[in-house]
Amino acid sequence: MIDELVRQIQEKNAPVVVGLDPMLSYIPEHIVIQATGEKGETLEAAAEAVWQFNKAIVDATYDLIPAVKPQIAMYEQFGVPGVAVFAKTVEYCKEKGLVVIGDVKRGDIGSTSAAYAAGHIGSVKIGGKVLRGFQEDFITVNPYLGTDGVKPFVDVCREADKGIFVLVKTSNPSSGEFQDRLVDGKALYEYVADKVNEWGEDCVGACGYSAVGAVVGATYPEQGKLLRALMPKAYILVPGYGAQGGKGKDLVHFFNADGLGAIVNSSRGIIAAYKQEQYAGFGAEHFAEAARQAVVDMIEDLRF
Amino acid sequence: MIDELVRQIQEKNAPVVVGLDPMLSYIPEHIVIQATGEKGETLEAAAEAVWQFNKAIVDATYDLIPAVKPQIAMYEQFGVPGVAVFAKTVEYCKEKGLVVIGDVKRGDIGSTSAAYAAGHIGSVKIGGKVLRGFQEDFITVNPYLGTDGVKPFVDVCREADKGIFVLVKTSNPSSGEFQDRLVDGKALYEYVADKVNEWGEDCVGACGYSAVGAVVGATYPEQGKLLRALMPKAYILVPGYGAQGGKGKDLVHFFNADGLGAIVNSSRGIIAAYKQEQYAGFGAEHFAEAARQAVVDMIEDLRF
Repeated sequence: MIDELVRQIQEKNAPVVVGLDPMLSYIPEHIVIQATGEKGETLEAAAEAVWQFNKAIVDATYDLIPAVKPQIAMYEQFGVPGVAVFAKTVEYCKEKGLVVIGDVKRGDIGSTSAAYAAGHIGSVKIGGKVLRGFQEDFITVNPYLGTDGVKPFVDVCREADKGIFVLVKTSNPSSGEFQDRLVDGKALYEYVADKVNEWGEDCVGACGYSAVGAVVGATYPEQGKLLRALMPKAYILVPGYGAQGGKGKDLVHFFNADGLGAIVNSSRGIIAAYKQEQYAGFGAEHFAEAARQAVVDMIEDLRF
Repeated sequence: MIDELVRQIQEKNAPVVVGLDPMLSYIPEHIVIQATGEKGETLEAAAEAVWQFNKAIVDATYDLIPAVKPQIAMYEQFGVPGVAVFAKTVEYCKEKGLVVIGDVKRGDIGSTSAAYAAGHIGSVKIGGKVLRGFQEDFITVNPYLGTDGVKPFVDVCREADKGIFVLVKTSNPSSGEFQDRLVDGKALYEYVADKVNEWGEDCVGACGYSAVGAVVGATYPEQGKLLRALMPKAYILVPGYGAQGGKGKDLVHFFNADGLGAIVNSSRGIIAAYKQEQYAGFGAEHFAEAARQAVVDMIEDLRF
């Protein structure tokens, strides 16, 4: 799957992933009104509004981008109907040929991580049938529990040709509280990076990159440069561009000399572009066209 | 909610939580056969089998125990139908008067953690209505992203009278890989413990304990003793008893002198008791009675 991701990044010349993180406040009023008109003020209505919003964004951008990254929290907030729309969104994006990165940040003890892996990137066996739950191509994984909490995901990556991005240095302001702690002069995130190399060494694709990638926030360009060098075969998923503060030129060192090695996420900056001054001319009715323009501009901003 | 948990622990004289982690392999064949007979070899059938299994276990044990802890991974593995049974299980346990600890180990950047908190322990506003997604009483939270990834959960604890257990030192074999790293002579989990105190200081209940608790594995009794002293107001959720290796007498130091301060989880050891030699006499047909006996024995083992 890492080969497919790299292929699409090269084909579309766009190291860009659109974060499908639909807060209700991002969704234009006319969509919410239509959904609540049909289904009342219910979780089902919220989920329907999310679905209509996502579908329009995907339809307007899929030819430009290699991948999407739905953030499952934004769906879980609406309970079971929300999770059902997460599944529907994943399925729809795959039909459109997109690589789907489920931003689920799962991670637990071994047997539990195995269940998460089965549900999101693997399969379960029921009687004589092999069935799939959520069917993302990649997911994000939290490393706090160590190797036996991550290995079950890596095993499924190998068996099912999928991938993961392990949280190494996250984009949020307080990420340094634990991640930057110095252990014998070396930051904790560097130890995590060493493990990312170890976990990923047996699943390097034809493209030269491993199915085990890393998350490093755009908001920490110095650490990005260091981590790029430390994990030469790990694809880096870079959140925090745009709305969270990162800029295109700051991200050059997240990439390798081959122009590959990183994929930059933007969520709010794309899906709620119509709310920004720059794209306000589109109006709420044309939110999806605003999103498309924001993708075009982001791709341009990342050419260096 | 911490007051309610402590009240039930005292009333039932049982610092015990039953982990509802229904691997398909734990579910007696007759239940799986009935479910697949009705619904085919589908995710819906697996979810139905899980539901029937859970319901029987809860019916057989709810009068003895203060709380249950469904592990959401075991439901997510069956996709949307599995997650729907997670929600149904939470609801049913609450109808039975149990405190429900959702073992979800969520944690993300601030805005995303806020969405998880809304979905699992808080609420969302849709039009003029306040609606709830999964409705657990407590959830487990991963601290790797630091304060701004945890605070949204704490805020909801205060607003909605709910609680969280933050992963401090997990029960799995490789938990030391990052959690035990020494930073200026102090283990990383001690820094996390300091933060647990800080996060929880404004939400101490009438019982003297905070809504912000901690997860410390039964498999690490020495660290348990240290962490008990470091976090005097944090309730400690203790996984890893029984099947993962911990024993009753090893756990005395997870408790405070008042006999409170810890609640010990057993999952497989209870729900799959009928598969153990000790309870084999019950037979698979009477798996729920075996679970009840295992709860009785666990409560006895924890009297010291």
